Amino acid sequence: MSKGTLSKAPLSKDRLYIYDTTLRDGQQTQGVQFSTPEKIRIAQALDALGVDYIEGGWPGANPTDSAFFDEAPATKARLTAFGMTKRAGRSAENDDVLAAVMNAGTGSVCLVGKTHDYHVETALGITLAENLENIGASIAHIGTQGREALFDAEHFFDGYKANPAYALDCLRAAQEAGARWIVLCDTNGGTLPGELAGIVSKVIAAGIPGDSLGIHTHNDTENAVACTLAAVDAGVRQVQGTLNGLGERCGNANLTSLIPTLLLKEPYASTLETGITMEALKRLTRVSRMLDDILNRVPMKQAPYVGASAFAHKAGLHASAILKDPATYEHILPDLVGNSRIIPMSNQAGQSNLRRRLSEAGLEVAPRDPALGRILDRIKAREDEGYAYDTAQASFELLAREELGQLPEFFEVKRYKVTVERRKNKYNQVVSLSEAVVVVKVDGEKKLSVSESVDEQGSDRGPVNALSKALSKDLGRYQAIIDDMRLVDFKVRVTQGGTEAVTRVIIDSADGEGRRWSTVGVSPNIVDASFEALLDAIRWKLIRDTPALEATGTVAEV
Amino acid sequence: MSKGTLSKAPLSKDRLYIYDTTLRDGQQTQGVQFSTPEKIRIAQALDALGVDYIEGGWPGANPTDSAFFDEAPATKARLTAFGMTKRAGRSAENDDVLAAVMNAGTGSVCLVGKTHDYHVETALGITLAENLENIGASIAHIGTQGREALFDAEHFFDGYKANPAYALDCLRAAQEAGARWIVLCDTNGGTLPGELAGIVSKVIAAGIPGDSLGIHTHNDTENAVACTLAAVDAGVRQVQGTLNGLGERCGNANLTSLIPTLLLKEPYASTLETGITMEALKRLTRVSRMLDDILNRVPMKQAPYVGASAFAHKAGLHASAILKDPATYEHILPDLVGNSRIIPMSNQAGQSNLRRRLSEAGLEVAPRDPALGRILDRIKAREDEGYAYDTAQASFELLAREELGQLPEFFEVKRYKVTVERRKNKYNQVVSLSEAVVVVKVDGEKKLSVSESVDEQGSDRGPVNALSKALSKDLGRYQAIIDDMRLVDFKVRVTQGGTEAVTRVIIDSADGEGRRWSTVGVSPNIVDASFEALLDAIRWKLIRDTPALEATGTVAEV
Repeated sequence: MSKGTLSKAPLSKDRLYIYDTTLRDGQQTQGVQFSTPEKIRIAQALDALGVDYIEGGWPGANPTDSAFFDEAPATKARLTAFGMTKRAGRSAENDDVLAAVMNAGTGSVCLVGKTHDYHVETALGITLAENLENIGASIAHIGTQGREALFDAEHFFDGYKANPAYALDCLRAAQEAGARWIVLCDTNGGTLPGELAGIVSKVIAAGIPGDSLGIHTHNDTENAVACTLAAVDAGVRQVQGTLNGLGERCGNANLTSLIPTLLLKEPYASTLETGITMEALKRLTRVSRMLDDILNRVPMKQAPYVGASAFAHKAGLHASAILKDPATYEHILPDLVGNSRIIPMSNQAGQSNLRRRLSEAGLEVAPRDPALGRILDRIKAREDEGYAYDTAQASFELLAREELGQLPEFFEVKRYKVTVERRKNKYNQVVSLSEAVVVVKVDGEKKLSVSESVDEQGSDRGPVNALSKALSKDLGRYQAIIDDMRLVDFKVRVTQGGTEAVTRVIIDSADGEGRRWSTVGVSPNIVDASFEALLDAIRWKLIRDTPALEATGTVAEV
Repeated sequence: MSKGTLSKAPLSKDRLYIYDTTLRDGQQTQGVQFSTPEKIRIAQALDALGVDYIEGGWPGANPTDSAFFDEAPATKARLTAFGMTKRAGRSAENDDVLAAVMNAGTGSVCLVGKTHDYHVETALGITLAENLENIGASIAHIGTQGREALFDAEHFFDGYKANPAYALDCLRAAQEAGARWIVLCDTNGGTLPGELAGIVSKVIAAGIPGDSLGIHTHNDTENAVACTLAAVDAGVRQVQGTLNGLGERCGNANLTSLIPTLLLKEPYASTLETGITMEALKRLTRVSRMLDDILNRVPMKQAPYVGASAFAHKAGLHASAILKDPATYEHILPDLVGNSRIIPMSNQAGQSNLRRRLSEAGLEVAPRDPALGRILDRIKAREDEGYAYDTAQASFELLAREELGQLPEFFEVKRYKVTVERRKNKYNQVVSLSEAVVVVKVDGEKKLSVSESVDEQGSDRGPVNALSKALSKDLGRYQAIIDDMRLVDFKVRVTQGGTEAVTRVIIDSADGEGRRWSTVGVSPNIVDASFEALLDAIRWKLIRDTPALEATGTVAEV
C-alpha cells in the first residue's frame, strides 16, 4: 500500500438485532388473546425465522403470560420477559410486580419506565428524581441477578420534545445502571420519520451509542416501518416490531415488512447483518399466514411482501411485460420471501396472460388460436353480468374448457328444491330447518337425493348447506372422487349485473390432497348463485381426479 | 423597523394539491371492479372531502370507465381522464387510444409514458428518441385542445437510477410541451424514502420546479405514505394516492392516512395549504367506511386515523390515563377525523358514550341508570355472536328500547316457510322461482300472506325478496305505515359467531320521508338472518310512524 492513498478496508457489516414483541405488544391488539399453546407455536416459528429476541409477555400480569414462561420452548433466540420498573418508595428487591417478572427466569428482562416529565408527575404522581432512581435501581437489579437488562423508554419522543434534558437523564440512568439496550419508544405513534431521526441523532450525540439503542414505533400515521428505518439510518442497532404489524390501536412496526427490506434492500443489505438467513427468509410468507390462521383472520391480500396480492399483476400492460421480464413490474422476486406471482384474469387482461393462465391449468393453447378471443369475450360478458374471475380461478378454467371443447358433462342437474322453515315448537321455542332435494342424471340414471341442514350440534346451517349436502350425496360412480371435498369459505356480495342488482357467491373448497380452489356463481337469487358455485366446485374436482382424465393428461369424453 | 434586523414576513403557505386515483389505480386492486353508479358515489364523496383532482379512469379501456365519464357528476375537483402517450409511428391526432381519452372531454388529462430506458427499448421496442417525441407530441396535443396536461412518469425512480440523463430528458420533453404537472412514479414500489427524496431533490436541482411535480408511490415495502411525505419534504407539491390505500399489488399511497397527517402535523400544518378544510376532515372516517361498504369489505380496524381500533385503548393503565388527559396516549383527538375513542365498556366512559348514542336515537337515560350496564352487556354478548352495531343503528336502538321497556310488540311472527325451486321447463329452459309464506298475529288476529319472487321483468329475485314481500303484505292496521318502505341495500358477510361461522346480513331500508336506516340479523342460516334484519327494519319504521308514538314523543303501550 503506497503512503498517501488509503485503500478501503474490507467492509465489516454492523450487526442489527431483531426484537419481536408479537407475544406481548401484539397481544394488545383489539380482539387478540393468545392461548399458551398458540404462544408456543408462534415462538417456535419466530425462532426458526431467526429473530434475536422473543418477548414472551408480562409474567404476573395475566395467567396466560405466566403459563407461557413456565412452558416456554427452548429457543436460539433470547426469550425476554417484559415488566415495569419498580415503584417509588420500595427497593427493587421488594417490588412484587418486578419479582414476578424476574421469576420467569429468562436470560433477558425488559422493563418499561417513564421518560416524559409530564407522565412522571401526572400519571405516576412522583418526583422526577424518584423516577430516575426507579429506573437506575431496577436496571441494576437485573444485572445483579446475572440477566441481560433492557430499558424500554416509554413516550421517549414526546418526552424529548417536552423536556430533552430530563428525557436524556432517564436514558443515562439506565445506561449507568448497565442496560445492554435502551429502547426508544414512540408510544403514541404520532412522531413522523424525519423528526424521529433527528431526535435519535441527538441522543447518539449526547453519548448513548447507537449499538446500545433500540427503536419501538407504532403505526398511527402509517409510518411505523419508515420510522424504524429512519432510526436505523441514524444509527440504532435494535429494531422492535411484531409479525403482521399486530399491536394496540394501529399496531406496531411490522416485522413482516421490515425483515425483507433490511435483508434485500440497500443501504441495509450490504452494510448490516441480522440473524436471519436468506434461506429462513423464504419462510416469511408461511409464518405470516400461520399467525392469521391462529387468529382466524383472513390474511390481508395487500400485505407488503407476503400478501396474496403482493405480486399480483392485474393491468394488461403490466402483465404482458412481466411475462418478458419480471423485473419490469416487481421490486423483488416473490420466491425470496416464499410468496408467488399471480396474473389474474380480469377484463383488463390480454391474450398473453390468458395463455399463461391456461397453461397453469394444464391447458396448452397455441398463440392466435381463435378460442382465445372467444374466451376473453365470454369473460368480459360474464364480468358485465357480475361475475368475477380474479379469485375464482377454478370457474375460469371451466369456462375456458367449455370454449376449448374440453369440458365433459359428468352429470346433468334436472332440478332442485330447497325449503326453509321457521316456526315455534310446542315449547314455544323458535326452531328453523332447511331441506334440499336435488335430482341429477348420471350415466343415464336419475338419482334423487335429499338432505337437511342440521349439523352435529343440532343447529340449522341454512339452505346452502342443505343444498351442498344433497348435491354431493349421490353422484354414482363419481361419488368416491368427491367424498374428500369440503366447503371452507363462502362469500356473498350484492353487485351490479347489467342494470339490476345480483348476488355474487364465491365458494372456496378443499380436498384431502390439500388442494384449495375457488368458484363463482351469480344470480338475483342467492340460493341459485350458491348452487352454481357449488356445481363448479364439484366439476373442477372431477376434472382433476377422474382417472380417465388423469391417465391421458387431457380431458377425454366421459 | 430598524435597519439591520430583518423582521420575518408573514409566512404565506405553499399550496399542496391532492390528486385522488381511487377510481383508476384503485381499481387495479385484485377483486375490485366498480360499477358506474359506485364510481359516481365515490367521486361525490371525494369532492365533498375537498380533493383537487379526481382521476376517473381510462376512457376507452373498458366499458365502465367510458360510461363513468359520460355520466360524471359535476364536481369542484378537476375531473381527470387517464391514458397513455401516443404510440410511435403516428401523430397524436391519429392515435385512436389517445383520441378515446380526449373524447371523455375532461378539463385535465393525465398521460402515462416511459422514462426508463430499458422499458422503452424492451417493453415498447422503440428508440429512446421516439419515446421523447411521443411524450412531447402527446402533451402538446392536450394543450392544443385547451386542456390541462399531466405527465405520469412511469418507473421514474428505477429509470433515474439506471440512466439519470435520459430519465430527466423525458421529464423535460413533457415540461417543454407544456405539462402543468409532471408526476414522478415509483411504479414497482421498491424505492425507500431516503433514496426517493434524494432523487426528487436532484430533479428539482435539474430545473423542474417542485410546484410542477407530483409524487405517486406504491406500498410494496409499506413505505408509500413515508415516501410521499419525503417527496413533499423535498419540494413536490402534488400528492397522488387512493382512499384506504387501494391499488395494484400492495396498494397506492393511502390518502386516508396522508390527508390528516398533512393537515394536522408539523412541518406540514403550518407551511402547506390544501383544498381540504378542518370541517371536511371530519368526514374522513365516514368516507373510508363508505368505500369498504361499496366493496363489501370489513373495514380494517387497525387503519391509521379512521380504523375502529385507531383510538381503542385496551391496556388498563392507558385507559385510566386517557380519562385524565387524552393526550397521554393519543397523538390526535379522534373527533378531528370523525372517528371516536373506544374505552373498555365496563368503565364510566363506556357508559357516557352509550348515553350519547341513545340520546341521538331520542332516548334520554339518566346517568347511572342500571339499564345502561344491561345494554352494554347485551351488546357485548351479541357482538360475540357475530352482530355488528357500528352501522346497524336501527337494530341498536331496538335492542336498547327492549332493555328500557320501550319496545312495543306490534305483531308476532308465528312462522314462515320459503321454497326455492329450479327446474327445466317444457322447452328445456332452466327456470327458478321462490315463494314465501309468512304467518303473523296482529291484534289477536292471525294473518297468512304468500308472495313469490318474480319481478316485473319476470326474473326470479330469490328467497329474501319473496320473504320481504310476504312479511310486508298484510300487517293489519300497521300496513298503511309500512307501505312506503323499500329495501335499498342488502349486504351479507360470513363471520365468526362464538366458535362457528355465521352469516351476518345488514339491510338498508328507506321510506317516502327520505329516511334511511340499517338493521342487522345473524344466523348460520342466511334466510333466517335476513328475516331477522327485515323484521327489525319494519319494527323501527313502526316506532317512528305509529301515530300514538308520534303524538307523545315516547313509546306508549300499543
